[in-house]
Amino acid sequence: MSLPPTLSKFLSRYAMAVDSFMRDHVRGMPETLYKAGMHLVRAGGKRLRPAIVMLFARALGGVEAEYQAIPLAAAVELFHNFTLIHDDIIDRDEYRRGVPTTHVVYGEPMAIVAGDLLHAEAFRAIYRALDYGLEADVAARALELLAWAAKRVSEGQALDMMFESTWDVTARDYLDMIYLKTGALIEASAAMGALVASGDESYIEAARQYGRLVGVAFQIRDDYLGVYGDPSKTGKPVYSDLRRGKKTILVLYALEHLPSEKAERLKSLIGREGASEEELEEAAALIRESGAPKYAMDLAMEMARNAASILDELPIEDSRAAEALRELASFVVEREK
Amino acid sequence: MSLPPTLSKFLSRYAMAVDSFMRDHVRGMPETLYKAGMHLVRAGGKRLRPAIVMLFARALGGVEAEYQAIPLAAAVELFHNFTLIHDDIIDRDEYRRGVPTTHVVYGEPMAIVAGDLLHAEAFRAIYRALDYGLEADVAARALELLAWAAKRVSEGQALDMMFESTWDVTARDYLDMIYLKTGALIEASAAMGALVASGDESYIEAARQYGRLVGVAFQIRDDYLGVYGDPSKTGKPVYSDLRRGKKTILVLYALEHLPSEKAERLKSLIGREGASEEELEEAAALIRESGAPKYAMDLAMEMARNAASILDELPIEDSRAAEALRELASFVVEREK
Repeated sequence: MSLPPTLSKFLSRYAMAVDSFMRDHVRGMPETLYKAGMHLVRAGGKRLRPAIVMLFARALGGVEAEYQAIPLAAAVELFHNFTLIHDDIIDRDEYRRGVPTTHVVYGEPMAIVAGDLLHAEAFRAIYRALDYGLEADVAARALELLAWAAKRVSEGQALDMMFESTWDVTARDYLDMIYLKTGALIEASAAMGALVASGDESYIEAARQYGRLVGVAFQIRDDYLGVYGDPSKTGKPVYSDLRRGKKTILVLYALEHLPSEKAERLKSLIGREGASEEELEEAAALIRESGAPKYAMDLAMEMARNAASILDELPIEDSRAAEALRELASFVVEREK
Repeated sequence: MSLPPTLSKFLSRYAMAVDSFMRDHVRGMPETLYKAGMHLVRAGGKRLRPAIVMLFARALGGVEAEYQAIPLAAAVELFHNFTLIHDDIIDRDEYRRGVPTTHVVYGEPMAIVAGDLLHAEAFRAIYRALDYGLEADVAARALELLAWAAKRVSEGQALDMMFESTWDVTARDYLDMIYLKTGALIEASAAMGALVASGDESYIEAARQYGRLVGVAFQIRDDYLGVYGDPSKTGKPVYSDLRRGKKTILVLYALEHLPSEKAERLKSLIGREGASEEELEEAAALIRESGAPKYAMDLAMEMARNAASILDELPIEDSRAAEALRELASFVVEREK
């Protein structure tokens, strides 16, 4: 599915605003450090997280709130890119967004520091929001949200790593983990937008819920695309999750629902660096046979629908922005990349 | 030199307050992640940076400011420990504070994430300062200071790494680098203390200058101890800086001042993983022969004296805290560990 029309217009406008903020503020010496930090940022990305910040700000607070949200949107995008750099080191991933990953180009030590730089720049951007007219107490709340998400993301990343070396993981554990690793930052993004638009805690809570659902649905789709996606679209090598033995919801559901012989066969095929393309294709076929892809996508779509319905309960000031948020909820579960 | 008397009393009291804050706030699941994050924190450390925050707050603002500074002091200590975890990965250091480093105990992936967690916890602590009665605009300024230091530390770390693979480094480059890598965080620590005590920009600027001088002097002493220190006191293996070919001020001064034959000999001895103890002893002797240790320590002591004299110009509310800050300036250049 290509980008829905209303969302598409907002995305390109927001990407420009956020990229321009990042270009202006993320600079310094030595040049190599900043080039390493901005390597993946420059390689592309849909800028979905900053769009969620800005769309919530606009939907609930109009164009003034939308403007004040720019630094917070940039903060979220910088933070996200920091996590990508470190995740790629940890997962030994060599390609992302169709380019070699940061540690492949700049070496691991520089990539560690480049990630740390973006982590710092994300928090620095929160302070810069004062220049955009944000009140100090709102900036302090935004700091709390980003720091809260940062803590959760570390926890999710640690769990994700720990799951790789054990079979003792349930689908529930998996959903909790991806909530931490992916959902929390999207939750914080939505909350930041609502925060800038309004101090009303019930709106912020509703936005959080939207972000949580969209975030988990997004990750389920990501895991689906990791097995059944087209590498020329996703920009990631095919089957790398299976090769590494990631316990995604697809794998966990399949192991629970396949007859034991086939489940054992699936276990024996995944999680081996040396597995052949044919073996991984067989694994993907076994997973499909279990009904896992349908189960996972049904679950993700239900979450996306619930997220969209949250918008019906909010006092919408800008209906186009709310429409884009509805489109975004569907898009994350229908996207091909 | 052991700890001076007034400083010593403050250090142990502050260490308790800051450690207790960290114990209460840095918790969560999975346990392994939090244990990895707190591994070096628990192993010891002098807690000099948090003491600088709290001493400045008390010296300029009395005990109320001192209390409000606790979360900021913890933020600085958490940030410092995050940098240690990542630096040890980058430098492949296996011991610190007399214990195996985080990545040696928990593996490199977990150590990367544990560092990221402490980085996040540092910023989260800034927000928590609101619970200690800090105003939101002061917390926002503290956020700016920590984020500014975080950016500088990344830059310094990147330069430090880049210097390892080139001889084209001057003593000036080195001093600029250690200002970024070590001085900036100590500068931010002093500034945070002054900020909590008073909104007066000239006091904050004076505190920054104290921190900058003490920070650079501290690092010069660190580099000195890396060659001439007693490993049983420093907790670090002897000569590891020489073995890795770190371009410290000692090495740079020696290369500039030794006759060319001896300078070439020195170059040939350092920066080789396989160098023998005897070769590194010879390198240390050549450096001493050049007068570098005396030059470096004279420079550091002058900085420490200048730092102490800054306190004479400030409106001191608590003279014991000011005395401890004077002692601290001398201590950083006279310490054996």
